[in-house]
Amino acid sequence: MNDIVYLNGEFIPRDQAVISADDRGFHFADGVYEVIKYYSGKPFRMEDHLQRLNNSLKEIRIPYEKTESLPAVFRKLMESNKLDFQDAGVYLQISRGSHPRVHHFPRIEEPTIYAFSFPFPSFTENLENGIEVITAEDIRWLRCDIKSVSLLPNSMLYQQAVEKGAGECILIRNGVVTEASHSSVLGIRNGVVLTHPLSNLILPGITRKVLLEISRDNGIPVKEEAIAEEDLYLMDELIIAGTGSEVMPAIRVNGQKIGKGTPGPLTRFFQEIFFERTRNRL
Amino acid sequence: MNDIVYLNGEFIPRDQAVISADDRGFHFADGVYEVIKYYSGKPFRMEDHLQRLNNSLKEIRIPYEKTESLPAVFRKLMESNKLDFQDAGVYLQISRGSHPRVHHFPRIEEPTIYAFSFPFPSFTENLENGIEVITAEDIRWLRCDIKSVSLLPNSMLYQQAVEKGAGECILIRNGVVTEASHSSVLGIRNGVVLTHPLSNLILPGITRKVLLEISRDNGIPVKEEAIAEEDLYLMDELIIAGTGSEVMPAIRVNGQKIGKGTPGPLTRFFQEIFFERTRNRL
Repeated sequence: MNDIVYLNGEFIPRDQAVISADDRGFHFADGVYEVIKYYSGKPFRMEDHLQRLNNSLKEIRIPYEKTESLPAVFRKLMESNKLDFQDAGVYLQISRGSHPRVHHFPRIEEPTIYAFSFPFPSFTENLENGIEVITAEDIRWLRCDIKSVSLLPNSMLYQQAVEKGAGECILIRNGVVTEASHSSVLGIRNGVVLTHPLSNLILPGITRKVLLEISRDNGIPVKEEAIAEEDLYLMDELIIAGTGSEVMPAIRVNGQKIGKGTPGPLTRFFQEIFFERTRNRL
Repeated sequence: MNDIVYLNGEFIPRDQAVISADDRGFHFADGVYEVIKYYSGKPFRMEDHLQRLNNSLKEIRIPYEKTESLPAVFRKLMESNKLDFQDAGVYLQISRGSHPRVHHFPRIEEPTIYAFSFPFPSFTENLENGIEVITAEDIRWLRCDIKSVSLLPNSMLYQQAVEKGAGECILIRNGVVTEASHSSVLGIRNGVVLTHPLSNLILPGITRKVLLEISRDNGIPVKEEAIAEEDLYLMDELIIAGTGSEVMPAIRVNGQKIGKGTPGPLTRFFQEIFFERTRNRL
């Protein structure tokens, strides 16, 4: 696939997109990223993504202040690749830039900015039928609130799911559910939505945030409390939430049925309202 | 600096060393590395470094089986850059390679292999006088035994030290010393060497290993037990050990003197025997 990508100010074919082997994103995972979804060519929650990006940049002190110029870059990417009227995604990565290898944060004039777009259909079969998930120990670092590219643990954890034929890997730290390898986790029990509170242990998921807004707008009670590992199996419904996963029903955990082993009524309600909002960009 | 570096089979000027912006080392920190020190042009503990590299590769399932061919690459790098008769270092990084972005481990034919050499003098003033260090919470992941490039936490932690004018950042997890941001930590109290046991929480440091060998060879008692945070200040001597740090005396921790605030006699003994071994490649 040789689509048009964006690298440091230029729109170029993907096979020409090269970075220095001394980029700190390559040596130190010294960078952050976002994935933004476009529904029928229109971005969903762009402001939330840019705000989170700014926060990630601030936390690791990459001095890039032009994030408000990025949506125009994404738009041009979508147009260049003829994705501007369909469901698509944009991946954006900002690393501190290229520098002789030193452990601390050197001053670098220009960060490395890389972005590409990709077709990203919604309403898949999985959203209809639900997926199986596994659990594993949350081996990640203690600043999961930063959306950094230090993703080797996430990759290792998701690999475990793939090898077991599962669709996601729910993470357990100190006996409670934090989130999943690349998505948030929300449980529903007795009509109450349960999810780990925002902290250094989870990413402030934007889909998570939207689902909590939908809950509040519709009088569905929410408790931002971590679900104990053993209680996971007692949930009536379980949702894997994320820009990619959207509102994904998890119907089995480690082979055990959640509820009746089919997507539950509140999950269906969340899907309905969520996709209403994505279509109307609310 | 436009020295000769090695990238994927070729020896090229550094400014031509570019990798795909879709390298998994850049997107996911999906790679491992080693730094090997050469004393007067001769590598120290190459077998240990290669063994640790093989282990890191195995743990993250990068199927690269030609690590025994790397010393010849390093040799040629040193020669190309006229470093082959002096104290120098080689940095090696192996990432899974370039692939369209997916969270799991894709099958990729060829990993990305990047190596460069650099002048790396020993016996610096710091080794003579000692350095000040700080402590910080160990925020890293739970597989610190893998020498991966998922180093953003290490970089953030070392940055804290630099900003406080210190030379290293000692890491505290659950109330005990694990290691430092890019080196091992050994304490000496009442003539006994104390250091965190090998586990998923620390890198199996090669200099650490050499110092434990020297201890055993010389009848110095060793306890591979973690030092409690509060006991750190009660050590008679403190050593920061690593390929780069060598046998570095830490003389102050968070401004508090260790022992008399000068490098102690056992530290001097370790330095003497260590450099004897590096010179004789033992």
